[in-house]
Amino acid sequence: MRIVVLAGGIGGARFLRGLKRAVPDADITVIGNTGDDIHLFGLKVCPDLDTVMYTLGGGINEEQGWGRTDETFHLKEELAAYGVGPEWFGLGDRDFATHIVRTQMLGAGYPLSAVTEALCDRWQPGVRLIPMTDDRVETHVAVELEGERRAIHFQEYWVRLRASVPAEAVVPVGAEQAKPAPGVLEAIAAADVILFPPSNPVVSVGTILAVPGIREAIADAGVPVIGLSPIVGDAPVRGMADKVLAAVGVESTAPAVAEHYGSGLLDGWLVDTVDAGCVERVEAAGIRCRAVPLMMTDVDAAAQMAREALALAEEVRAA
Amino acid sequence: MRIVVLAGGIGGARFLRGLKRAVPDADITVIGNTGDDIHLFGLKVCPDLDTVMYTLGGGINEEQGWGRTDETFHLKEELAAYGVGPEWFGLGDRDFATHIVRTQMLGAGYPLSAVTEALCDRWQPGVRLIPMTDDRVETHVAVELEGERRAIHFQEYWVRLRASVPAEAVVPVGAEQAKPAPGVLEAIAAADVILFPPSNPVVSVGTILAVPGIREAIADAGVPVIGLSPIVGDAPVRGMADKVLAAVGVESTAPAVAEHYGSGLLDGWLVDTVDAGCVERVEAAGIRCRAVPLMMTDVDAAAQMAREALALAEEVRAA
Repeated sequence: MRIVVLAGGIGGARFLRGLKRAVPDADITVIGNTGDDIHLFGLKVCPDLDTVMYTLGGGINEEQGWGRTDETFHLKEELAAYGVGPEWFGLGDRDFATHIVRTQMLGAGYPLSAVTEALCDRWQPGVRLIPMTDDRVETHVAVELEGERRAIHFQEYWVRLRASVPAEAVVPVGAEQAKPAPGVLEAIAAADVILFPPSNPVVSVGTILAVPGIREAIADAGVPVIGLSPIVGDAPVRGMADKVLAAVGVESTAPAVAEHYGSGLLDGWLVDTVDAGCVERVEAAGIRCRAVPLMMTDVDAAAQMAREALALAEEVRAA
Repeated sequence: MRIVVLAGGIGGARFLRGLKRAVPDADITVIGNTGDDIHLFGLKVCPDLDTVMYTLGGGINEEQGWGRTDETFHLKEELAAYGVGPEWFGLGDRDFATHIVRTQMLGAGYPLSAVTEALCDRWQPGVRLIPMTDDRVETHVAVELEGERRAIHFQEYWVRLRASVPAEAVVPVGAEQAKPAPGVLEAIAAADVILFPPSNPVVSVGTILAVPGIREAIADAGVPVIGLSPIVGDAPVRGMADKVLAAVGVESTAPAVAEHYGSGLLDGWLVDTVDAGCVERVEAAGIRCRAVPLMMTDVDAAAQMAREALALAEEVRAA
């Protein structure tokens, strides 16, 4: 079975670990969000790609969900001692190696997709991980800070400000000119099923869909496209998805996110059992819907979610 | 008193610490060797400048004489896990920060001299540290390896091979085209005394002198130029100076190194007490010579050596 998954960071990575457990023999291609990428200290940092790679490769800091296990922060301390920031982005000594290797390869002329493949040679994530694009796309968030309207990098909004001010707009700068990375459209066209894990629908999955050609390829693939709600009850399972949903005028509820994707794209949608009452509303929008437990408390729970998603895909296919 | 010191790494740095203790109110300019500089992992590493900066700024690993105190090597371990080398060059997590800041500033267009000044803003070495040049000079060593004659980077010869094969030639590549960094010639012209610490006469002091204009400026400064022998008895005090002295046809003895510099450059030369027997030979070459203890066992010993060098400078001046 060939499965394509559009993944952001922590939620996507944890879902993928469950998916691998649920269908160990499946051929899984992950299209990773790169809109969160940021240049820090002259280095190219790809937080979402790395979170997927570290999580599936066994190097993740389980507790925080990002960064490396057994990590130290001496380099960052020293940069601060030099007065070189930002200090709000937590790069550890082990993590730095990934960014140094990546930056060196990019400098040598390799596209990000080739670099990602080389990094995965070490981590052996058990999936094919492709960045959505080799071109530069950078998610900016328009906010009002100290009375002034400013567009700031997504990481500054998310990590430094902890989404503490309203997001007025979310713009994937450069997306319109970006091309899908080699292999992205081919994987979509060859897929048996396409999954949207419980990743952020705006700044993760939404950014991937903003790369011209990707949304169309998914819609045209003729295979079940199944999503899992990142909203349970009236709050995001993790992170601050509600903040950026507000910016695109979408309420923070499981059915609203399904409607935001739309029946032109989405064939099936899983909501949590606490949201069972909204199944009808989603189905009224032309999207098949089931209520199942959606809390990824451990790998088994994530695997069960993956099984439910694949079961819903079979239902869609049989319909 | 304005003192100019031509410095390599460990020997130069330890001598400078003694000099500062001996004459705390002196205005000291250090012209640092950059022929040892190397690009590693896309970063610009300046071992000699950093050794001076860390030693005088209180951040040096005292035992090994280079690198940072309280250091970890997680980043390097991770690079090795990615298969990215070289593994033979010991960059620690704290040390990496210096190279990252430097590389970022160089990339932003600052010359190495301005970058060095910025790094010293943090370390407050108590001297003005200027690289010999802002241009790229790279010391290469011609060796025979596995039956083939090859030119390798000095660091590969020194650190990887531990000078275990004969050096057939030592070439400061790029030196002929290099210009002294801003402030170098001015500091020499304004100096009251110029010192050559017990640094390597070929790959440290010799490389600095290979930058067109520096040797001439020292010879023309009209002030005492005093050196301290890095050879005690028939062996280098530290390091493997004998290996590269052989490459330039100079025997590893205190008087031979003085003759190598020559009376056109050097006015005075300190040899160790064990070499008292060669004082006459040095003086016969037109260089005033004294035998004093030259083992830098601690800062006090280095300070006493500095006092002896300055006393010899006064003798030269009075003569």
